[in-house]
Amino acid sequence: MKTFPLNHVVESQQFDRDLLELVFQMADQMKADLFGERKYAKYLEGKIMASLFYESSTRTRFSFESAILRLGGSVITTENAREFSSAAKGESLTDSTKIMAGYADIIVMRHNEAGSASRAAEVSSVPVINAGDGAGQHPTQALLDVYTIIDAFPDVNNIKIAMVGDLRYGRTVRSLSYLLTKYENVEIIFVSPHVCKMEADIKTYLEKNGTPWREEQDLALVAQEVDCIYMTRIQKERFHSIKDYHAAASKYILTPDIVQTMKPNAIIMHPLPRVDEIPKEVDDDPRARYFEQAKNGLYIRMALLYLLLQ
Amino acid sequence: MKTFPLNHVVESQQFDRDLLELVFQMADQMKADLFGERKYAKYLEGKIMASLFYESSTRTRFSFESAILRLGGSVITTENAREFSSAAKGESLTDSTKIMAGYADIIVMRHNEAGSASRAAEVSSVPVINAGDGAGQHPTQALLDVYTIIDAFPDVNNIKIAMVGDLRYGRTVRSLSYLLTKYENVEIIFVSPHVCKMEADIKTYLEKNGTPWREEQDLALVAQEVDCIYMTRIQKERFHSIKDYHAAASKYILTPDIVQTMKPNAIIMHPLPRVDEIPKEVDDDPRARYFEQAKNGLYIRMALLYLLLQ
Amino acid sequence: MKTFPLNHVVESQQFDRDLLELVFQMADQMKADLFGERKYAKYLEGKIMASLFYESSTRTRFSFESAILRLGGSVITTENAREFSSAAKGESLTDSTKIMAGYADIIVMRHNEAGSASRAAEVSSVPVINAGDGAGQHPTQALLDVYTIIDAFPDVNNIKIAMVGDLRYGRTVRSLSYLLTKYENVEIIFVSPHVCKMEADIKTYLEKNGTPWREEQDLALVAQEVDCIYMTRIQKERFHSIKDYHAAASKYILTPDIVQTMKPNAIIMHPLPRVDEIPKEVDDDPRARYFEQAKNGLYIRMALLYLLLQ
Repeated sequence: MKTFPLNHVVESQQFDRDLLELVFQMADQMKADLFGERKYAKYLEGKIMASLFYESSTRTRFSFESAILRLGGSVITTENAREFSSAAKGESLTDSTKIMAGYADIIVMRHNEAGSASRAAEVSSVPVINAGDGAGQHPTQALLDVYTIIDAFPDVNNIKIAMVGDLRYGRTVRSLSYLLTKYENVEIIFVSPHVCKMEADIKTYLEKNGTPWREEQDLALVAQEVDCIYMTRIQKERFHSIKDYHAAASKYILTPDIVQTMKPNAIIMHPLPRVDEIPKEVDDDPRARYFEQAKNGLYIRMALLYLLLQ
Repeated sequence: MKTFPLNHVVESQQFDRDLLELVFQMADQMKADLFGERKYAKYLEGKIMASLFYESSTRTRFSFESAILRLGGSVITTENAREFSSAAKGESLTDSTKIMAGYADIIVMRHNEAGSASRAAEVSSVPVINAGDGAGQHPTQALLDVYTIIDAFPDVNNIKIAMVGDLRYGRTVRSLSYLLTKYENVEIIFVSPHVCKMEADIKTYLEKNGTPWREEQDLALVAQEVDCIYMTRIQKERFHSIKDYHAAASKYILTPDIVQTMKPNAIIMHPLPRVDEIPKEVDDDPRARYFEQAKNGLYIRMALLYLLLQ
Repeated sequence: MKTFPLNHVVESQQFDRDLLELVFQMADQMKADLFGERKYAKYLEGKIMASLFYESSTRTRFSFESAILRLGGSVITTENAREFSSAAKGESLTDSTKIMAGYADIIVMRHNEAGSASRAAEVSSVPVINAGDGAGQHPTQALLDVYTIIDAFPDVNNIKIAMVGDLRYGRTVRSLSYLLTKYENVEIIFVSPHVCKMEADIKTYLEKNGTPWREEQDLALVAQEVDCIYMTRIQKERFHSIKDYHAAASKYILTPDIVQTMKPNAIIMHPLPRVDEIPKEVDDDPRARYFEQAKNGLYIRMALLYLLLQ
């Protein structure tokens, strides 16, 4: 087994094509093992993971904690890392990290400020995994997104992906766009209201890396031609008026009628939580993969924990 | 060992006499094993229980978590399930449940809304145990209550049980009344202030199932004739005035003087927490069983986890 | 191995010189084992520790939880013990403790009221460790502080220790002073603003036990002669005006310039969290031991858990 070259996982930019494939291959093994002979069930026995969440995110936290437990490790956890101490709420992140590194073998950190994970990684004597740092990165989400696409289209042959909704502020679609440039033959279609358009930096990056993209407005039309629709939630606070928001949001709902027109082997993704941009009636459609996508987070995180701690 | 017929535990109505006996027999085994050879100590090794608490209940949560740990399993836990995500507090319970079912082997859920556990169970691919859903059910409490009574009176022969305090709104006494109809030769005496009387639906149910009941006002009088006193807390908010509350509450205190008049082999129960309806002086009386009752929750929950996950 | 004579750890006064040495010797073994053959890795397998924190203290909680996990045990934990129940926030500490003692093999308690741990220990059927009770005690902090000093100066030969900052209200320096009387040849120098001077009770205690002490104002001067500087945070709320606070606090900062003048083998300690009384530039100095000190908490707590549960 090739050794893992990373000490910490703080941003998706750390992953090139080879590394993606290494992680996905390991995630495949983890998934197979969970339903198979469980030979990894005690692989991380004796290892302690510290969940340091400065803001609540039960879904992400449980996904990581399940991952280490499935590998035989154990967990120390807080959802209130902000209140690190009743005495001095103002302790520096780096001090807290150094101390935690004395109690755990790996630190999973969620923070509201971009750059936090990177600052923590700099001073930590044990691996740090970024579980989301504000407007910054959420690399394990990006990895599980790509993994879900690759899982459906293993050879990534001329696939078209529509990213729909709040593209301007969406951490997930930005990271996903970035990682998709590592694959040839992928075309991206951005589908969004005007105020939520994908920003220029990503478009330039795609061009420089030879990934074709275009912008569309009409979800119903785009749905018919793509292999993957990646839905996201449009946030009220992006709009000047509630009326504008409702006008925009109502145009980007993946109704059962639209789903009917999609290719039979296409897939529907969503980082979750959803509100109403995907109605529940769609859940039973075999193309709906968002719950599987969430579950893929478990395999990806098991793979990363394994690789970082091996 | 007879296979357990339930996939989820959401309400006491799921338990008939046979099933009660199966659970209690298993609880007996768990209790004996904890003080004995610990042959179940790794029975659920590798199994993950998710504690999804939408409201705090440290006692109940710890009881469940201790139960799975005593069987070798592990735990992912939150007391703030309401803040499931910083992004979308409004995610549906069913979406959250589906995702959690991907990370855990069994879900224990506490929620403030009646019917939550049942809705969760409908969509969950893993067993769901209701750890209390608002004004609805708290089936494991009902089971441990009956278990505590059966433990003291194994043949349940002509026993009289007084339920005292807030019977109208009390989830525990309502469920307990229901389950006691599964046993012959039990008589129930409801002892409460007028505004907290047991509601008609339960009385009708008792009659239809042949369980005799009557109502009394005087705790001191009733205490002398019963085999079991089940005390509950009278809540201030039931009364129009603080004065009315104090007048009522002071009549339903199980003083040491009253305890003195009880049968020697009678038992005193309370779902806890108590405030002052049972003075601390009573704790040392051998008839006081409320701490043992709380501990019985551990054996009952071990039994259920074992049966649901076997 | 000598049997441990304590059932609970509630205050530093429980430790005489022999007991200190027993704990430190065990802590040494724990430390060696963590970096060695891990023969204690499953020593407490099957044992459950309940973390009952009535106020947040992530550092202390993680230190204890890491300790039991490193020994193979497991954890049930709450940072919101105050909300023990949604129904009755007013449940007595002793009732909560009795119930928890039914679910766990050992209880670690943090509380805001002095005397809480002692009251809990009185009714608990399992060992209770005080993890800080308000203005009262925090005995494991005191132990790890002495352990850190002994680790640097094994024969404790004519060492001088400066305690700096908020000595009047500082729980740690008070307990540390107490424990240092167990060693001969230790001299203590109290360095603090006038309003934060060490109180008379400790000074009297030192005299009665033959431990010399004196008071100084000038940190820069004292720094040159001592073997150990124990820094603490000066709290704003001790001062009448913000201006007085800044005037005082600025005099008790251990600047790199002062550190330069310290003896080469002296050590710098701090119970953490720090604010700015030790600038980050000092962290890389080999004399800075505060992160090691925090980590020593792990070994001390492993030792205590081991000794209490053996």
